[in-house]
Amino acid sequence: MGIVLGPNRYGKAQVRVVHVVRDGDRHTLRDLDVRTALAGDLAATHLTGDNGQVLPTDSQKNTVYAFARKHGVASPEAFALLLARHFVHAQPAVRSAEVAVREFGWQRLGQHSFQRGGAETRTATVSYDGETARVVSGLTDLVLLNTTNSEFHGFVRDEYTTLPETTDRILATAVDARWRHLDADADWDAAHRQVREALVAAFVETYSRSLQQTLYAMGRRVLETRPEVAEIKLSLPNRHHLPVDLSPFGLDNPNAVFVATDQPYGVIEGTVGRDGVAPADGDW
Amino acid sequence: MGIVLGPNRYGKAQVRVVHVVRDGDRHTLRDLDVRTALAGDLAATHLTGDNGQVLPTDSQKNTVYAFARKHGVASPEAFALLLARHFVHAQPAVRSAEVAVREFGWQRLGQHSFQRGGAETRTATVSYDGETARVVSGLTDLVLLNTTNSEFHGFVRDEYTTLPETTDRILATAVDARWRHLDADADWDAAHRQVREALVAAFVETYSRSLQQTLYAMGRRVLETRPEVAEIKLSLPNRHHLPVDLSPFGLDNPNAVFVATDQPYGVIEGTVGRDGVAPADGDW
Amino acid sequence: MGIVLGPNRYGKAQVRVVHVVRDGDRHTLRDLDVRTALAGDLAATHLTGDNGQVLPTDSQKNTVYAFARKHGVASPEAFALLLARHFVHAQPAVRSAEVAVREFGWQRLGQHSFQRGGAETRTATVSYDGETARVVSGLTDLVLLNTTNSEFHGFVRDEYTTLPETTDRILATAVDARWRHLDADADWDAAHRQVREALVAAFVETYSRSLQQTLYAMGRRVLETRPEVAEIKLSLPNRHHLPVDLSPFGLDNPNAVFVATDQPYGVIEGTVGRDGVAPADGDW
Amino acid sequence: MGIVLGPNRYGKAQVRVVHVVRDGDRHTLRDLDVRTALAGDLAATHLTGDNGQVLPTDSQKNTVYAFARKHGVASPEAFALLLARHFVHAQPAVRSAEVAVREFGWQRLGQHSFQRGGAETRTATVSYDGETARVVSGLTDLVLLNTTNSEFHGFVRDEYTTLPETTDRILATAVDARWRHLDADADWDAAHRQVREALVAAFVETYSRSLQQTLYAMGRRVLETRPEVAEIKLSLPNRHHLPVDLSPFGLDNPNAVFVATDQPYGVIEGTVGRDGVAPADGDW
Repeated sequence: MGIVLGPNRYGKAQVRVVHVVRDGDRHTLRDLDVRTALAGDLAATHLTGDNGQVLPTDSQKNTVYAFARKHGVASPEAFALLLARHFVHAQPAVRSAEVAVREFGWQRLGQHSFQRGGAETRTATVSYDGETARVVSGLTDLVLLNTTNSEFHGFVRDEYTTLPETTDRILATAVDARWRHLDADADWDAAHRQVREALVAAFVETYSRSLQQTLYAMGRRVLETRPEVAEIKLSLPNRHHLPVDLSPFGLDNPNAVFVATDQPYGVIEGTVGRDGVAPADGDW
Repeated sequence: MGIVLGPNRYGKAQVRVVHVVRDGDRHTLRDLDVRTALAGDLAATHLTGDNGQVLPTDSQKNTVYAFARKHGVASPEAFALLLARHFVHAQPAVRSAEVAVREFGWQRLGQHSFQRGGAETRTATVSYDGETARVVSGLTDLVLLNTTNSEFHGFVRDEYTTLPETTDRILATAVDARWRHLDADADWDAAHRQVREALVAAFVETYSRSLQQTLYAMGRRVLETRPEVAEIKLSLPNRHHLPVDLSPFGLDNPNAVFVATDQPYGVIEGTVGRDGVAPADGDW
Repeated sequence: MGIVLGPNRYGKAQVRVVHVVRDGDRHTLRDLDVRTALAGDLAATHLTGDNGQVLPTDSQKNTVYAFARKHGVASPEAFALLLARHFVHAQPAVRSAEVAVREFGWQRLGQHSFQRGGAETRTATVSYDGETARVVSGLTDLVLLNTTNSEFHGFVRDEYTTLPETTDRILATAVDARWRHLDADADWDAAHRQVREALVAAFVETYSRSLQQTLYAMGRRVLETRPEVAEIKLSLPNRHHLPVDLSPFGLDNPNAVFVATDQPYGVIEGTVGRDGVAPADGDW
Repeated sequence: MGIVLGPNRYGKAQVRVVHVVRDGDRHTLRDLDVRTALAGDLAATHLTGDNGQVLPTDSQKNTVYAFARKHGVASPEAFALLLARHFVHAQPAVRSAEVAVREFGWQRLGQHSFQRGGAETRTATVSYDGETARVVSGLTDLVLLNTTNSEFHGFVRDEYTTLPETTDRILATAVDARWRHLDADADWDAAHRQVREALVAAFVETYSRSLQQTLYAMGRRVLETRPEVAEIKLSLPNRHHLPVDLSPFGLDNPNAVFVATDQPYGVIEGTVGRDGVAPADGDW
């Protein structure tokens, strides 16, 4: 059997661009981390080192900065769409491009002063093949916690099960969500804000009997809120907060004192979609 | 020359305790990472492995959890004071204790629902030697940025200097501040809030000709605001945002597009104190 | 359109297990981080919070520890195979299981003494659906560097290209490799060692005109070495080492002084496979 | 009471320099992360923003690269000495300089090919005040583990003590060591190698009744081995490996299966010195 080159792509990661807009004394900024990945006819560089079809990753980086100046950064999604389309249209050897953006939030302190927000990051990933642009928006590291209204019982007990059942526990997670849009055109900032609000509201309002139930409620709420969202993928680590056994010290612990643990942690992953909507090509 | 045991101590790090208080349906929580360090007469365990004077670090950890239940967590400072005094008073072999607390902030979303705040962490370090308790409060990773009102020129130019002078740059930093209190008694939460506000206000309001000037203004503002603060140490990394040279692409860049860089970075460190206040014993 | 539950799974991550074997005074150890993920008929817990089909992630964790005691850890692959098959066979509600293992290396210092190896991590991911077990082996964070024998020129120059061509540069990368086996039976330790040696040898021996060329040479070498490997995926970040312009200081720089940069970085991703071998089901 | 500027300094951190030496086809490299900190008469920049005494941190960075070219990198200590002396002698406003170097190790794979070593990092910190140079060498993240020959019992039991005594446990730590030299002149590479060997040998050979005993044995061995070392500071986190209770599953656990935990962890800190050697000025 011969050895053959399979799927491949190349690009630049961690292109950090901060774009400042001055409206008189009042400034706004967007703070992005951009990653590009181009695919196409790249056999030559792999097989012989002939780079005649290779646009350097350094040029891809330069394009990000030049586009920030020429077109501004209306939103992560809009900026990624511009870049992905450019790479495919401008380079004959490029058949498809993926541009992934992470946006770091800043809170306004004054006309030109800002405070960096938390670890929560907004994401957008655009794939373009010359015909269709697929837009996936998302967020990561939105850490939520309910101190009550969470139970976990009635589960399978096998020979390795020692977990006690509980009708009152802390439920905490770091939301990692990606949602796929039906179209490549939207008011991206408003859409993101409303999806985020739906995720938070569903987490807060759901009386939870399992993290899976909370996950589904969050996904469902998003799809009810935003009709242009085709489906949403959620990955919810269970950030366990374990009640400490204080009985050796003659103390009770009515869910007052918890140890927050890093590892191990549960992970619940699920997709919520719409009946009748075609699945996306490929992985996302 | 003989070989001798010098200064030593031991304790537990990363004791993660979450304390929930239920006021009817309305819950509050405090989320701490506690570190203990005990010193005293510990020659035996070092020289012969005789542990007769060693309180296990596991017991120190247990004490943290038990104290959270018995005494609650009024504030990082108050909790650290309780623990430090306990270790010294309860254990004859312990001559001094240092308890360091990091508090992670949560924003309220509902009666019992919370969202984790940003990377900013509140800190408190208490040292107690059986007579005097020294309280140092602090914060880390408060990331601030001004898009203008920052200059840097008139500096020394030696044979290795290539930096251009500038009258308009982005100034960004991740504030790391520690302030030493004159007393071991205060409304710690109010004190912390006001020091933090003073730091932020001075950063926002100072027209800066050097990060050193901003540092001093921040420290000065804190001391003017809170008379019980003896001195403050600030470490301000200069998170460089460099304007991108877009001229190869036929574009100007009127401070619109910046590359945010991680490394290398400048670091400005300084202390602001009060005339006539005695320095602290030892390092802090 | 109705809202529906799509693909989902759940499990435990970062289950850290260290297994020590005593052969008289000579001890050996294996140090693993295990992640489990189970899929099956989980609609009830998502839709109503009925956990009657849910094996707690805590029980999955317990199983890992019990299996280490009952069966030992012959290799990451063998251990993951045991676990994946167990979950599917023992639990009627589990249709498929994925068990991913990361192994941290230790170098022997003595009969029972060890030193932790570098950041390089061995990986194994086993998927089992009740009929077929797919085994993917891998490694991450193997950092390699050639100080010469690397060129990069002849590439596309568009309006955003400023990169100079070079015939002598540092080439450095952190190898992330995963290879899919044709069978679920092998001498896994020997196989891993030989694949690793092939990767390193190809990196060292290839005179490189692009990182893509090096990637393909590495993949090809693996497939030539180990006939049971169906295909290999490589992700090679280009850890740029840029020659410093010392001319402002009256100094030349004949590839002697470099700045090692963290970001941005290029990423080259590619697959090398065998003609006529069927692709795997799903993503891996 | 007036508000006054206290101790302060400024410099550049994370200056990453890789220096390659070509001896025909055989290359060697040194890979450093350099941090500079200058102190002196800096009141003006703090109080008024007058930078007439400020050497930009950018120039400090340039000096590192230029010195690598002009003088090479004989060792971290020698390179730091060169830089610290330069800053004090060349700049009238600089009264003292501290240069801290971290060196990342690479293992040779071929004439010009290298593999990055582990997380272990060699360190050197030089302080110079115009008269005296103090050299502190060190290493961090040397992770060592004994699977036996470690006990822990006979400790204090207070009301919060639940830890069982043990006569056989895993002892693991990540060595963080700094040692202060009596002189500023040595064969630094040989000295570092021998200190490292002494640390490892003492860890391996000590039958341990407490981590403190191991710490002291390690420090003592270093001072016995290298007469030019004045004192050594060791910080040893206790990386707990806890035997898993498998009795719920009908299994024994004769120290075969352990859970490796990240947090909380014990920390043992101690200094070993020589009788009659004057302590160093200031903190180190």
